Amino acid sequence: MTSPSPLHVQLYEEFTRRIRTGQWHPGDRVPSEKSLVAEFGTSRGPVRQALAALRAEGMIVGGRGAPPRVQHTAPTQSFGTFMSFTEWANELGFEPGQRVVELTRRQASEDTARELRIAPDAPVVEMIRLCSLDGKPAMLERASFPLEVGRHLLATELDNRSVSQTLAAAGAHSIRARHVIDAISAHPLESEQLEVEVGHPLLRVRRLTFNELGTVIETADDRYLPAMASFVVENSAEHRNPLTRRLTPS
Amino acid sequence: MTSPSPLHVQLYEEFTRRIRTGQWHPGDRVPSEKSLVAEFGTSRGPVRQALAALRAEGMIVGGRGAPPRVQHTAPTQSFGTFMSFTEWANELGFEPGQRVVELTRRQASEDTARELRIAPDAPVVEMIRLCSLDGKPAMLERASFPLEVGRHLLATELDNRSVSQTLAAAGAHSIRARHVIDAISAHPLESEQLEVEVGHPLLRVRRLTFNELGTVIETADDRYLPAMASFVVENSAEHRNPLTRRLTPS
Repeated sequence: MTSPSPLHVQLYEEFTRRIRTGQWHPGDRVPSEKSLVAEFGTSRGPVRQALAALRAEGMIVGGRGAPPRVQHTAPTQSFGTFMSFTEWANELGFEPGQRVVELTRRQASEDTARELRIAPDAPVVEMIRLCSLDGKPAMLERASFPLEVGRHLLATELDNRSVSQTLAAAGAHSIRARHVIDAISAHPLESEQLEVEVGHPLLRVRRLTFNELGTVIETADDRYLPAMASFVVENSAEHRNPLTRRLTPS
Repeated sequence: MTSPSPLHVQLYEEFTRRIRTGQWHPGDRVPSEKSLVAEFGTSRGPVRQALAALRAEGMIVGGRGAPPRVQHTAPTQSFGTFMSFTEWANELGFEPGQRVVELTRRQASEDTARELRIAPDAPVVEMIRLCSLDGKPAMLERASFPLEVGRHLLATELDNRSVSQTLAAAGAHSIRARHVIDAISAHPLESEQLEVEVGHPLLRVRRLTFNELGTVIETADDRYLPAMASFVVENSAEHRNPLTRRLTPS
């Protein structure tokens, strides 16, 4: 739990940050592998891996004779901003609000144990939290963590704090996630917390989050007011499709 | 409109098909660039581009001394299967049903013209269609096409036919798409067609589809019964994040 992200991921994130912020400007030559190796004090392998990812994603073009250049690309949300409600709200210029409705240590239910890939009856930490933007309710989150991850939350004052930053500070880094998106009616708890009528349509995102070892560190169910947020996905025939349309199990 | 997909995309699709079907088996050495160039009769560039994409996506590992090998990866839905309701239903073993509720040639509304990036008042083809699985209503689709694309639909018997296959046969290939996902209440038309009460929550996917030249060939609004379908998205810190959480414009 305490290892940082793999080196090539850290480099990838730094390079995309440079492209996003314009430090590496569209049309500029990409610094040579040699100079990047010298700058970051790493071996050549991770630098090459990070550059190959940028190339495959169209953020670097050329090569094979022509010098590789930075390509102008549409700004996309970083994985970190996507995963953190707090970072997202801040980036949009809104005041994020988080209010813990319930924080519980208990034995995992059968479903939660299966999702977290832990033994049935193993201890878990469960959290229900209301997230708001500029004081307006936006999303009700239910999240479960294995105890070794969630214990970092039990000891912390979570109101108006980022859970993902709290966990990352404790060494539990989200590095991959799987989201199941559908729609659901507001139940009484959402009706009360999100201030809408029972039956109001909500956008539901169920999420499994993995660390760099492939261990599940969180399973969550976020219910958004459609008037506050929606999700945008891009896919193409040129890259592995990140999107699956799934039959709802009956 | 009549050009096929770019060569490196065709090669990428063929290589991923080979990995998916096991023709290139996990652990096997990837055929050399030279042999692929010979097999497909192309230049080295597109082969390298396709292999670089597979490498960046983790479907090929090794290289740099170690010979590149096929990696076992989770099966993901192809872009083609994702984009075609017909292909998707067939792959799941369901009988797809498509019934055109309305097919109209008219002047574009202001909104539609802006989305399709055509002149206001330019002619468009608009279609409302009910899609079902084994005879059960699953989704109501509203789609608009610029006339030069949509005219291929006006001339065709579309009931129980794939629109994307019909368009591809006419040279309009979807190669990239942008999806905005949220939730919405069933209105009277959806209530009637999808056989649910007005106000029932629906999963809405609004879609812009581009061809290989970056031209918008379709704008659509699909409303799914959550009991029938949901969407799964994978993202990670290691690749460009395909997912954006967006504030709903007020």
